[in-house]
Amino acid sequence: MEEFLREQIEKIVKLSDDEFSFALSHFSFKALKKHQYLVQAGDPAPNDHFVVKGLLRSFYIDEQGKTHIMQFAMEDWWISDPQAYFNKTNAILNIDCLEDTQLYYISIENREKLCAELQKMEYFFMKKSNAGYIALQRRILSLMSQKAEERFTQFVTLYPSLLQRLPKALIASYLGISRETLSRMPLT
Amino acid sequence: MEEFLREQIEKIVKLSDDEFSFALSHFSFKALKKHQYLVQAGDPAPNDHFVVKGLLRSFYIDEQGKTHIMQFAMEDWWISDPQAYFNKTNAILNIDCLEDTQLYYISIENREKLCAELQKMEYFFMKKSNAGYIALQRRILSLMSQKAEERFTQFVTLYPSLLQRLPKALIASYLGISRETLSRMPLT
Repeated sequence: MEEFLREQIEKIVKLSDDEFSFALSHFSFKALKKHQYLVQAGDPAPNDHFVVKGLLRSFYIDEQGKTHIMQFAMEDWWISDPQAYFNKTNAILNIDCLEDTQLYYISIENREKLCAELQKMEYFFMKKSNAGYIALQRRILSLMSQKAEERFTQFVTLYPSLLQRLPKALIASYLGISRETLSRMPLT
Repeated sequence: MEEFLREQIEKIVKLSDDEFSFALSHFSFKALKKHQYLVQAGDPAPNDHFVVKGLLRSFYIDEQGKTHIMQFAMEDWWISDPQAYFNKTNAILNIDCLEDTQLYYISIENREKLCAELQKMEYFFMKKSNAGYIALQRRILSLMSQKAEERFTQFVTLYPSLLQRLPKALIASYLGISRETLSRMPLT
């Protein structure tokens, strides 16, 4: 379990055993069941979460009650309400489990303490943050410029394993296309 | 000019005169005329840019030749092609000047050197990066869940000065709405 987190960090920075133990001491562990909520809109959401096992989604419910999926997260991915996390405000997103889930989580206070003590971890979080920024920008370009079929093809290419694990209705919601349109796509 | 960059950094971390001089030595300065390109899609785009004076936009041209505006940047804002910058790939975005522009820029190599030497600057870039991530996420939620009129109202609330400086056609392109729809909005 710990090794999984260490491998993730060591893809970017190498840590000694002592450094990893020190980093790990800033994280906590949690297990949740399918359907359980990790974050509820309106509540504080003071942690960022690293998925060891399972599958979650973050989603926004608009004023008309419609659900919009912001993100999925499976093994080796991170998930949070970034605005609530970084600005210490209440969540605007919900996060729930689509499968039984195990994760490590770290508060913003612990992350800042850890980064101040161990600059390698500041570098690690910076790299993750930059990759997340690029992914969000790709999503914006996709929403603005691609047709439903192109968005679906890109999703399948980027995340083939998610296609197997997710109900089609959730993929349609993530891509902003109707389930009927999705059912006409090749590969489904 | 230098003071403007220092004020921006010191909104987040305080620097001694020596520290600021050291940080500044990693930046270069550039002046461009209205209509001039800062980044051209297909070329390397190795710098992140801090606007001292002027106004720029980054935009994507899709396969059908349609232009999609990713971002504007005025005084005190940063602009780059993040994917090209962080991954050292060629640009997928273009960046051009909507007004005569003056800016500081920093290469990814210089940024990494600076951050390794001066952890305060790593913290500064991390904070900017987090704020950028939150802004992109807000944009995605807006594209997915808001009607044209709501998107326009949010834009005016967030960026009142941009409304004065930008041609309406560019605001419409940024918001992903037609110019005809925009012309029916209040306040224009």
